[in-house]
Amino acid sequence: MSGVPATSDVPAMSITADSIEQFLERLASQAPTPGGGSAAGIMGAMGAALVSMVCNVSLGKKGLESIETEMLAVRAEAEALRAHLTTLVADDVAAFDALMAAYKLPKNTDDEKQQRAAAIQASLTRATLVPLACARACAQVIALARRAGEQGYKGVVSDAGVGVLAAHAALRSAALNVFINAPALRDQTAAAAYLEEINALVASASLENEAVYTLVRGRL
Amino acid sequence: MSGVPATSDVPAMSITADSIEQFLERLASQAPTPGGGSAAGIMGAMGAALVSMVCNVSLGKKGLESIETEMLAVRAEAEALRAHLTTLVADDVAAFDALMAAYKLPKNTDDEKQQRAAAIQASLTRATLVPLACARACAQVIALARRAGEQGYKGVVSDAGVGVLAAHAALRSAALNVFINAPALRDQTAAAAYLEEINALVASASLENEAVYTLVRGRL
Repeated sequence: MSGVPATSDVPAMSITADSIEQFLERLASQAPTPGGGSAAGIMGAMGAALVSMVCNVSLGKKGLESIETEMLAVRAEAEALRAHLTTLVADDVAAFDALMAAYKLPKNTDDEKQQRAAAIQASLTRATLVPLACARACAQVIALARRAGEQGYKGVVSDAGVGVLAAHAALRSAALNVFINAPALRDQTAAAAYLEEINALVASASLENEAVYTLVRGRL
Repeated sequence: MSGVPATSDVPAMSITADSIEQFLERLASQAPTPGGGSAAGIMGAMGAALVSMVCNVSLGKKGLESIETEMLAVRAEAEALRAHLTTLVADDVAAFDALMAAYKLPKNTDDEKQQRAAAIQASLTRATLVPLACARACAQVIALARRAGEQGYKGVVSDAGVGVLAAHAALRSAALNVFINAPALRDQTAAAAYLEEINALVASASLENEAVYTLVRGRL
């Protein structure tokens, strides 16, 4: 949950205060934001919410007293991740808008060119780190979905399954934005490190997603 | 888009009028609805919205005049599917709530037992057909995401990628509810047909999801 630079001058819209229908309208529109990055944040947050739901239903169920501590621990982590991913929805919009604004800066003089290039690089870093943070958080949601799916109340195990599917789709979605923005960074060492990390996250998440889905189907 | 029985006596809540944050709160809560089925509908609708976005950005772009007819056709289908999937969010809640209500019907007399069993079977049919309708719609969204990803403006091709990931996760999520409810149907011929259809949808969607993701990554 670290490594995301501070918010730029471009204000982040509080998209998550929109109704679902309004959000879908804005997503479908010609406007570049909200786009896939925001959809990724929402899918990740839905994954975390579903993990919490499995914990909440399991807590207090007769016969499941022995998993209470585990369900409380999973829920605490899931709720922190849900809050983090919800914040990233607006951060993604702000990062993308800042990048577009940087590209539109004047480039008539050498001074302006230098300032524009620096602004683009700073915005590209942010537009790489926000989806990377989203992918990291989704990997943690997937791990929590496994714990909820393995031990949670059988009657809601399918919700843990939907949670892992949502978090996995979110992780791969966020990865697309890292794949786009990291290679344009001038700092090639940083770019390589970001790409190495995201490739590792995508690879392990895909294996884990299938493992948890299979586990959930076995408990239906 | 057919085969879903008429709404039961249990009113469908218009969840999609909730803010995203409110929806996430309700998803995380102990209440059985909204749950994974509603999350599936929203993911599917986000997938359709992202396909529309790719079309909307591509329409009117210089150099892309030759794909205008195709983008208009894809957008028209995507918008119809978005509306359908948005409706299914509330339908899923209504179907699940009706099933729970049927299980709670009195069963003291033979007459009551018979009425309860009939109500459960009717509700189970609906709780199978709603997610099956969701999965069918998501398969169509995936096909549209391919067309948008193949031909749409390169600058938003990642949004087609997120669209296919969202629709695929939604389809597999909806499938879990078919796997749960269909086997409990007394009409084993109908149950077998529903399971055969959902298994075929899951299998082809998984292949298509990877194909479109690879296609999108190649155009980034």
